[in-house]
Amino acid sequence: MTSIRQSWLDIPVDSHFSLRNIPFGIISTAADPHRRPAVAIGNYALDLLEFSNSGGFRQSGFTNTSVFENPTLNAFGALGRAAHRLVRTYIQDILAASGPYPDLLERNHPLRERTLLPLSSVQNHLPLEIGDYTDFFVGRNHAYNCGVIFRGPDNALNPNYYHVPVGYHGRASSIVISGTPIKRPVGQILPDPTAVPKIPVLAPTQRLDYELEFAAFIATGNNMSERINVNDAEQHIFGYVLMNDWSARDVQAWEYVPLGPFTAKNFGTSISAWVVLSDALEPFRTKPLARPADAGDVLPYLKEKNEESVYDIELQVFYQTTDGDKAVISKGSTKYLLFSFAQMIAHHTVTGANLRPGDLIASGTISGEDSGSLGSLLEKSQAGKVHIAIGQSTRTFLQDGDTITFTAAADDGSGAGLVGFGKVTGTILAPDY
Amino acid sequence: MTSIRQSWLDIPVDSHFSLRNIPFGIISTAADPHRRPAVAIGNYALDLLEFSNSGGFRQSGFTNTSVFENPTLNAFGALGRAAHRLVRTYIQDILAASGPYPDLLERNHPLRERTLLPLSSVQNHLPLEIGDYTDFFVGRNHAYNCGVIFRGPDNALNPNYYHVPVGYHGRASSIVISGTPIKRPVGQILPDPTAVPKIPVLAPTQRLDYELEFAAFIATGNNMSERINVNDAEQHIFGYVLMNDWSARDVQAWEYVPLGPFTAKNFGTSISAWVVLSDALEPFRTKPLARPADAGDVLPYLKEKNEESVYDIELQVFYQTTDGDKAVISKGSTKYLLFSFAQMIAHHTVTGANLRPGDLIASGTISGEDSGSLGSLLEKSQAGKVHIAIGQSTRTFLQDGDTITFTAAADDGSGAGLVGFGKVTGTILAPDY
Repeated sequence: MTSIRQSWLDIPVDSHFSLRNIPFGIISTAADPHRRPAVAIGNYALDLLEFSNSGGFRQSGFTNTSVFENPTLNAFGALGRAAHRLVRTYIQDILAASGPYPDLLERNHPLRERTLLPLSSVQNHLPLEIGDYTDFFVGRNHAYNCGVIFRGPDNALNPNYYHVPVGYHGRASSIVISGTPIKRPVGQILPDPTAVPKIPVLAPTQRLDYELEFAAFIATGNNMSERINVNDAEQHIFGYVLMNDWSARDVQAWEYVPLGPFTAKNFGTSISAWVVLSDALEPFRTKPLARPADAGDVLPYLKEKNEESVYDIELQVFYQTTDGDKAVISKGSTKYLLFSFAQMIAHHTVTGANLRPGDLIASGTISGEDSGSLGSLLEKSQAGKVHIAIGQSTRTFLQDGDTITFTAAADDGSGAGLVGFGKVTGTILAPDY
Repeated sequence: MTSIRQSWLDIPVDSHFSLRNIPFGIISTAADPHRRPAVAIGNYALDLLEFSNSGGFRQSGFTNTSVFENPTLNAFGALGRAAHRLVRTYIQDILAASGPYPDLLERNHPLRERTLLPLSSVQNHLPLEIGDYTDFFVGRNHAYNCGVIFRGPDNALNPNYYHVPVGYHGRASSIVISGTPIKRPVGQILPDPTAVPKIPVLAPTQRLDYELEFAAFIATGNNMSERINVNDAEQHIFGYVLMNDWSARDVQAWEYVPLGPFTAKNFGTSISAWVVLSDALEPFRTKPLARPADAGDVLPYLKEKNEESVYDIELQVFYQTTDGDKAVISKGSTKYLLFSFAQMIAHHTVTGANLRPGDLIASGTISGEDSGSLGSLLEKSQAGKVHIAIGQSTRTFLQDGDTITFTAAADDGSGAGLVGFGKVTGTILAPDY
């Protein structure tokens, strides 16, 4: 594929799903509620099960088409990156103007009718069944900003921070697809953190927040007690999604010592529907955040041959209040990471933990360098001190009825179109209390 | 069933698997490597798939026998406690001397031959597929002992400890069945915690430890955003197993701030093979640890109607060194918990996290009141200061080739036999480094 290849399909210039993207997801429709794999292209989903059943892959060289009979992408993911590449480039060939297979789909209107479904007509589902979900904390700017809020600028980052890709295991069961409403959680909160003795109450969180994150699905895992080498780690990644790690800050503050966040975060985590494959992100590689001179180097098991180990994909946070006020309140990038996903994977497996196809690994909150690129309300509102303007409204934390939408898209100005993630969106419902 | 009912099978008096136990597991044999459900009785496993296929459940009133065709107990668990009770009491009737169905198994020697397999001939496998695994920290004596070691007696327990059943999400993928060897992990360690700057090395852990835990499998879950009431919570439990939460203390000390243990614990967690149902533990109820007067009461969502909300089951830690020295180094009880499993479940779901059939919830390390009942080497060795005698050997932490075995059994002296858990055992292998 050259960078200016176009499709015979009419793909809007601002579509996230250009010919050079081809992200994978799981769909159903009103006519067929059976969950099945698809790719997004322009304003359509290409139904891979129907396409495969109609012989669409016969000329592809891809023989494992039975994986498209599954209601998740785990089996496809587990085939490994060579298989993903084969299928993705073949689909690009099918969809390319003046491509090698014009009779297969472009001129086959009955098959187009059956397999190209308007995105507006499809329901998305979780793309993979998630075994374990791990959330890292390698968005250094976010870690620093939170550290300043809670401990002041001199001790903002813990001594281990520049050496350990800090992470923790999160809750897999409550990961939901974009569009799922989030009910305001009710949890243990300390009404007055300065009072003695410390007596909590059970109450709806008053500090409900979003966290802007980027996450990778594991394609192929490792055996227990075996490490994944940092320079092989990208081969284990299926692709990426956007994530909103909803967080109750008051619950978190009370519960997190000494074992980390628990009920403050396990009530719901939203992800975008379409998994953008690693290959589609190759043009957007860049270097991770520089290490300060006094931090020293990382340990050898975290040292990467490829210095451009993260991606520069523009992130946006769109806020819509329950009153209909709207604003883009943050513009950031996926590049503001101290450690790459390859480093996170190498560290995740260093003591021998086994990853499995479908595991989800998230970056932690990503904030940029300035106040316009922060990835959480905790940072934007300075823990509730600063009111954020959204049209005629102001906010410190989320109110019932508010909707948060993250979008992300990469563009290198080549004219070849966007490589985007669509969106991850969620609306806050009033608590059940 | 009366408490003195006996079986027509010859069950040794010290067997953990008396007629009043009937724990469930998953087995395979050399002759049939297909994984299938079974119950343990005396020195035998009763193959439930074969028994069911032979019409064994026709008179039981239990019609969902297709669940026994699964290679895990998730589907059986998901049927709920009434179904578990029906099947367990029916199997007790089948196995009881002078029981109502003597022709079904006792006098049917061909069926006995096919379904009653010597335990020595069966291979056990994980009894349920574990979606999410959560480890709590409600063994108060352990929490206090560790707090004293790290922070001194005045600040041993954090201010939230008596109000929050503290817990965190653990790694599900690396939970293994008893008998699986554990390779000594290699991880980030700070060689000299007092040096400045703090520069870690990658090295095999020098402080490999066990943690003596008790864990519950979830039978039936809850929907996201719905809470499980503390007084309904036991109805969601399938049964219990012993757990060894292997831990690398030096890795843990360096990594755990601020998000909790990660690579220090996710390399392997061992569980016993046979799930002891809640009903079998009813005779052994007792009260949890008393709350100190100045701790105040728990919040209403954690208040239980039944004061006897934990079990008194004797725990033993058996150490065998690589040189063959042997000793029972701890005798404790599952009763030393500040919060019951019902309270852990109520808290786990308080903000709306959904539990699913097969989820595993562990107590955290259980230590008794004195030095003979401690649940970890960290406590027994006072963080490496005290050498523990094991025959002719001494230890502070685990050495390669050492084997740790936990056993647990309850006995009320009624003569009706033990309700035991068998064992969870694991041997440490040399690191791959």
